[in-house]
Amino acid sequence: MKPIQVGLLGIGTVGSGTFKVLQRNQEEIKRRAGRGIEITMVADLDLARARAAVGEGVQVVNDARAVIANPDIDIVIELIGGYGIARQLVLEAIAAGKHVVTANKALLAVHGTEIFAAAHAKGVMVAFEAAVAGGIPIIKALREGLTANSIQWIAGIINGTTNFILSEMRDKGLDFATVLKEAQRLGYAEADPTFDIEGVDAAHKVTLMSAIAFGIPVQFDKAHVEGITKLAAQDIKYAEQLGYRIKLLGVTKRKAQGIELRVHPSLVPAKRLLANVEGAMNAVVVNGDAVGTTLYYGKGAGSEPTASAVIADLVDITRLHTADAAHRVPHLAFHPDAMSDLQVLPMSEVVTSYYLRMRVADEAGVLAQVTGLLATAGISIDAVLQREADEVGGEGSTQTDLIILTHDTREGTLDDALARLQALPTVLAPIVRIRKEELS
Amino acid sequence: MKPIQVGLLGIGTVGSGTFKVLQRNQEEIKRRAGRGIEITMVADLDLARARAAVGEGVQVVNDARAVIANPDIDIVIELIGGYGIARQLVLEAIAAGKHVVTANKALLAVHGTEIFAAAHAKGVMVAFEAAVAGGIPIIKALREGLTANSIQWIAGIINGTTNFILSEMRDKGLDFATVLKEAQRLGYAEADPTFDIEGVDAAHKVTLMSAIAFGIPVQFDKAHVEGITKLAAQDIKYAEQLGYRIKLLGVTKRKAQGIELRVHPSLVPAKRLLANVEGAMNAVVVNGDAVGTTLYYGKGAGSEPTASAVIADLVDITRLHTADAAHRVPHLAFHPDAMSDLQVLPMSEVVTSYYLRMRVADEAGVLAQVTGLLATAGISIDAVLQREADEVGGEGSTQTDLIILTHDTREGTLDDALARLQALPTVLAPIVRIRKEELS
Repeated sequence: MKPIQVGLLGIGTVGSGTFKVLQRNQEEIKRRAGRGIEITMVADLDLARARAAVGEGVQVVNDARAVIANPDIDIVIELIGGYGIARQLVLEAIAAGKHVVTANKALLAVHGTEIFAAAHAKGVMVAFEAAVAGGIPIIKALREGLTANSIQWIAGIINGTTNFILSEMRDKGLDFATVLKEAQRLGYAEADPTFDIEGVDAAHKVTLMSAIAFGIPVQFDKAHVEGITKLAAQDIKYAEQLGYRIKLLGVTKRKAQGIELRVHPSLVPAKRLLANVEGAMNAVVVNGDAVGTTLYYGKGAGSEPTASAVIADLVDITRLHTADAAHRVPHLAFHPDAMSDLQVLPMSEVVTSYYLRMRVADEAGVLAQVTGLLATAGISIDAVLQREADEVGGEGSTQTDLIILTHDTREGTLDDALARLQALPTVLAPIVRIRKEELS
Repeated sequence: MKPIQVGLLGIGTVGSGTFKVLQRNQEEIKRRAGRGIEITMVADLDLARARAAVGEGVQVVNDARAVIANPDIDIVIELIGGYGIARQLVLEAIAAGKHVVTANKALLAVHGTEIFAAAHAKGVMVAFEAAVAGGIPIIKALREGLTANSIQWIAGIINGTTNFILSEMRDKGLDFATVLKEAQRLGYAEADPTFDIEGVDAAHKVTLMSAIAFGIPVQFDKAHVEGITKLAAQDIKYAEQLGYRIKLLGVTKRKAQGIELRVHPSLVPAKRLLANVEGAMNAVVVNGDAVGTTLYYGKGAGSEPTASAVIADLVDITRLHTADAAHRVPHLAFHPDAMSDLQVLPMSEVVTSYYLRMRVADEAGVLAQVTGLLATAGISIDAVLQREADEVGGEGSTQTDLIILTHDTREGTLDDALARLQALPTVLAPIVRIRKEELS
């Protein structure tokens, strides 16, 4: 059978990894796919870079539309990134009847509804394993491996840059700014790290997982997004003393009232495997009603790990494109006419537990005042850690840190209570609030 | 579209879990599969048990062949177990043109070649996600998620009973026999636990993973199988002091000369996630040349976790049965005409590292004698732990324990050296040898 011909749009880190792995393992991949899979055409604005990456024998052009227009191309890989031209080209490739493979989480989290509808109408596949957690086959696990389940929740470390930074902050007791610089020097963080450190990248990914898990449309605009830039080294230390580690989690949960969809730093019990995922590694925990808790771990980024996912999609399409379109694996796991209308909940309706750190006056009655106020609000306390004033503020200090872990509370309720706590004259600085996930 | 009709052979723990989950989540599963999936016929020798499990509205028979002969049945689930009648029925179901789903690792590890060939010839699918690691979609990850990779090795905790026993031995410092009794009382070990504790169950599973990873036929008879019955509490303790935990691992590796395929207790560095998989949980680590190291974790047994995998297979078949048979996902990941002829290596050709515990005379020169002998054999030493004689044998003892960790060594070379060490007059008891996997 003649090889599947693939056109590649954008040959940067992931693109050149894809070309390299496909070539290195071509014999083994062919034995799995039943047909050869060959990148025969590459489009990149930087022709010299493209030529250097693929050598001779591959057509290199600077016009992506020439790839899409080529009738011999069966599958188009989009590795340009961003919402702009990438969206246009993906839609054009679909219109031309090409199957599409993309690693573009931003594009799909924002424009997925439009893109999947176009692909469905045209009867082609848009595969995106590489868009979430690099080489870990988490899209496949959610969409195919766990189809028996009513999925209850997902919590994942899905951004390697921030996990590297948090691991370093904990290991070395350093503050965020110092570690970020180190991460940039080592290549773990980009020159402009905003999308990573502000949680946007993780929010794109959890938006995709949420849609697949619960059968809802992608709704990035409804996600609560909070990064790690305000995290203080002392909270990592206090969390540790209480038996927790702080991770940037993408969380999505099914509740009776709707879907929680949020990215923020979270305390995780130190004994959980997820808490022990260190450095730039990724891991996703999925809880289903039948299977219980499962976890998927691996490299979430990088040239060859991401290429692993891109190529798995190429093999999937090669294996499955002959299935009639009504039967194939749906893009978002659920058939488009059977999506759920469960709404994404506003953050005030989210129910979770909390870590609170308060700088308080070191005087009698403060603890009773604070806990009394929380009790009145109906917020139940799981643990209290009160430091000696001398330890916190030095010899003779009149201030101390009061750390409280709450049980599950509606965020709106907590917000109100925090406003009242903040107004107490004995509370001397802005209260720090970090969410906590027990993952049990 | 009319529902997919499923016939179930054998309705014990997993069968009734499958029926229950399929019913509980039927609406959600239908939204994923695009068609309803219904168990319409059940065969079990115990009609009363079957009737109790499925209620009214499902045909219950005591003759499995009546299910296979039913022209309305699209998929047959085999949950009888064992090599005997199960093999016959699976072959008959295939001959009748039914797709088959089975959780029967023993059957496939021993008779897989015959069964997959029959299915291939008939153009039907035999799906077996439930045969390895319960609800964890590890077959799917290996066969579809990691297709880009030249897989290098797999190491897994794939038997919950033995992992529970080892966790308890470590936690409580108890010996094997005591913990086994406790495990039986709690239902974690069967009345006849032989298949679990002797490593046979794990060997069935790693045989299947090895075939899928490397494209070789299933060859259970070539697997090295060693259980945990001889493991002593003191080795767990010494391992801990050296920074390791002891786990029963199924290991398969690709080497230039062939494939390693083995089940035995192994030291694993305590810092690895795999070492921290406790109780009855399962986890599999897969290393691929592109993706690096990935890990998959979850419940490896039990009614609903296993049902999760059985039903995922039903959905897969529903989604993919319209693909032409030449393109579908091959049973063992590689197309049958493209299998590898790499041989499974005899244990003497395996290269790994070792933990050795020697009861030696507490006298000058013993350490030099032992290490000298190892050096002569070309075996390089990674670490030595020598206990004070008093600690080991009590006040005034003249014996002590010498623990040695080796670097990578060919097992045949180590066997020869052990025979020579054992013959030394200063070595006072049989040497304990446990393999060690760094998993890096």
